[in-house]
Amino acid sequence: MKEIQVGLIGFGTVGGGLAQTLFEQDERLQRKTGCRIRLSHIADNKLASLPPPFSHIRLSQDATDLFANPDLDILVELIGGLEPARTFLLKAIAAGKHVVTANKALLSIHGREIFAAAAAQQVEVGFEASVGGGIPVIKTLKEGLVANKILHIRGILNGTANFILSKMTEEGAPFAEVLAEAQRLGYAEADPAYDIDGVDTAHKLAILASIAYGRHVCLGDVAVEGISRLEPIDIEFAHQFGCRIKLLAISVNHGEHIEVRVHPTMVPNGHMLATINGSFNAIEFRGDTVGDVLLYGRGAGQMPTGSAVAADVVDIARNIVHNAVGRVPPLAYPSPTMRPAAITPMSHLVCPWYFRVTALDQPGVLAQIAGIFGKYDISIKSVIQHGRDSKEPVHIVFHTHNALEESVGKALTEIDALAVCAAPTVKIRFLEQENRP
Amino acid sequence: MKEIQVGLIGFGTVGGGLAQTLFEQDERLQRKTGCRIRLSHIADNKLASLPPPFSHIRLSQDATDLFANPDLDILVELIGGLEPARTFLLKAIAAGKHVVTANKALLSIHGREIFAAAAAQQVEVGFEASVGGGIPVIKTLKEGLVANKILHIRGILNGTANFILSKMTEEGAPFAEVLAEAQRLGYAEADPAYDIDGVDTAHKLAILASIAYGRHVCLGDVAVEGISRLEPIDIEFAHQFGCRIKLLAISVNHGEHIEVRVHPTMVPNGHMLATINGSFNAIEFRGDTVGDVLLYGRGAGQMPTGSAVAADVVDIARNIVHNAVGRVPPLAYPSPTMRPAAITPMSHLVCPWYFRVTALDQPGVLAQIAGIFGKYDISIKSVIQHGRDSKEPVHIVFHTHNALEESVGKALTEIDALAVCAAPTVKIRFLEQENRP
Repeated sequence: MKEIQVGLIGFGTVGGGLAQTLFEQDERLQRKTGCRIRLSHIADNKLASLPPPFSHIRLSQDATDLFANPDLDILVELIGGLEPARTFLLKAIAAGKHVVTANKALLSIHGREIFAAAAAQQVEVGFEASVGGGIPVIKTLKEGLVANKILHIRGILNGTANFILSKMTEEGAPFAEVLAEAQRLGYAEADPAYDIDGVDTAHKLAILASIAYGRHVCLGDVAVEGISRLEPIDIEFAHQFGCRIKLLAISVNHGEHIEVRVHPTMVPNGHMLATINGSFNAIEFRGDTVGDVLLYGRGAGQMPTGSAVAADVVDIARNIVHNAVGRVPPLAYPSPTMRPAAITPMSHLVCPWYFRVTALDQPGVLAQIAGIFGKYDISIKSVIQHGRDSKEPVHIVFHTHNALEESVGKALTEIDALAVCAAPTVKIRFLEQENRP
Repeated sequence: MKEIQVGLIGFGTVGGGLAQTLFEQDERLQRKTGCRIRLSHIADNKLASLPPPFSHIRLSQDATDLFANPDLDILVELIGGLEPARTFLLKAIAAGKHVVTANKALLSIHGREIFAAAAAQQVEVGFEASVGGGIPVIKTLKEGLVANKILHIRGILNGTANFILSKMTEEGAPFAEVLAEAQRLGYAEADPAYDIDGVDTAHKLAILASIAYGRHVCLGDVAVEGISRLEPIDIEFAHQFGCRIKLLAISVNHGEHIEVRVHPTMVPNGHMLATINGSFNAIEFRGDTVGDVLLYGRGAGQMPTGSAVAADVVDIARNIVHNAVGRVPPLAYPSPTMRPAAITPMSHLVCPWYFRVTALDQPGVLAQIAGIFGKYDISIKSVIQHGRDSKEPVHIVFHTHNALEESVGKALTEIDALAVCAAPTVKIRFLEQENRP
């Protein structure tokens, strides 16, 4: 039986999950693939020895030992972060190793360089675990939906942000309180910035969009807004509008240009994405042939991520055994055919809006604000005023018809400059665009 | 550029969808695969000519012409039914052609013969479209979740049945009325037996279970109950229990033996499967590594099915181009390693139950019925009596704790034989098993 040897850089949570998966599934994978996939060499600069049942595996403190190990066919990078992960992947590729990574930050920033290097060396790059954890979202996009023009992508791609929004929705609790609880429960990092600011979601969307459209989309292309400014009252108003607020990754294919954006979104309760609660992820693809396909599951965690990394390792092992390396290009389209991405400026975005204006409850205020919206061609669908007979500023909530983001920006700048306005206006985009005239 | 030639048997709805997909996606598929996939020969005994833009494609009335055409690499069978589809597939395989089919009935009955023939001839068999329409459920199970022991499968696999149950739930309308509406709208066939009796769902479950466990599961192994006996009142009671009734395909892996069953099921509202409405399909896999993964989308229709068939064709084309035929076995496990399936007898099933007893409203009736349940060790969680002060029989509804199917059968036989019982008792299994003691 042919043996495929795997090296692993980083024996942390996810690295341990991969080791455990390959160990537990060994017999099943042999039976399915007809080859033996053996994790034979691990590099981790924080470990002096490996715990059982992995203590027999060769351990190096220095990843360089792995690049130099001629027996290794596949190198898996699971240390995260930009450096030294980038250098390690490039060195592994230069050494002719196939590589697997779960590193979304790295791929969304240095992906172009890494994929070009891999194409030049004719080695595989697997990164199923970089988006959607254990959900086989990248294989689905590349292979299952191969005969589709992807029209849009919509996803809940960060379990921490979704956990926080779900808790705020269920309990009416404020953001800071729920974040603290999420940190206590281990659902949020000590530094949760990437999760709650939407940057982690943007990493993942850049990867999906690159595959979906055959265009290089990088982190810098994605417009990002996080969830930290949301208040329980916004969630309450969302409920009144028949919606839930979700941090969505959205990409729309307009042919010549594409939208790529991450922001809190009003999702109608009838939409599947509104029903995704807790730390789960879900990704919806709309294909011109297949219509909508949605995938749901655990977007993070040691074993789900281990499942996805192992699937990549198996895929590459199969290609090695069958001399079929390069059978499916890493980004679905061969590297030389990848085109640059033309990104729709956010100022061109058109959608219905939610605005929560915080203003003093004085006669004429509503007329003043409505006048500004009118001036910028922003048509109001409904208005709710919350709180009255109070010396405190009140919330005036507007639900608009389709309006241009550029106009919204100008209108809100004027509104927030009014003497009666007591706080910056909160704005949230609705998921569904109304039919344009 | 290498050219892969495809032959198609059956230019009906799905066949037309495949032709249209390959036509519309031609440029995209060339770019992705580096080869040209050309539909070059169609057999359909009902057509004298092909409509544009397919009129240039060679047309035969007799499928035999395709087996004899040495230029064809892949033959797609889309005529459905058992014969002549079985003979056509076997002849195509004998002629050394790779084959693709969407024929769940055929595979769940004659799959063993077909897969053995394909293994002997070393040709590929693609059948993504046989389960879940456009949803890449088979690729996910075989490849995305390769590093998992599959613990269970739960699915809504028939859009017609789900459409009918959804309508009954939303409108409180009786089964026959909704079925007639579904037929008017084209969601149900003139002969809807396979859809509403659960047989179509059973076909698909047999295929999924074979892949999931590496064991031959055929239609005859699946216990099947349809939805035609459900009444609006059952849906109303389900609502009271916080559930929706869905026709589910369920398979549970007990190691030495497996459950494979199709029946109306009480699904708690908090479960994703309860939220799947209309003609959509959804499939949940539980893997020991990944946890729960759910896929959702269009389970039927010309273009979604075309998307899945085309994905199979592309997969096989890639294997031909890269000399990697046999890279992934059709059933995930190589044919010679497939084991026979030991099926859990339904009499051994343990779950909570819903019973609707129809009885005359006389003193002592409840005690009489409860006594029979007690005798068979069936413990009642709650009882609701519906309707009173009436000469008509009333509904007495029981929600039980875990109870053995065998005992349930005996108890209901005794209850239905009581003089006060006016109609056979309706029984529905709950999805979630309680924790066993």
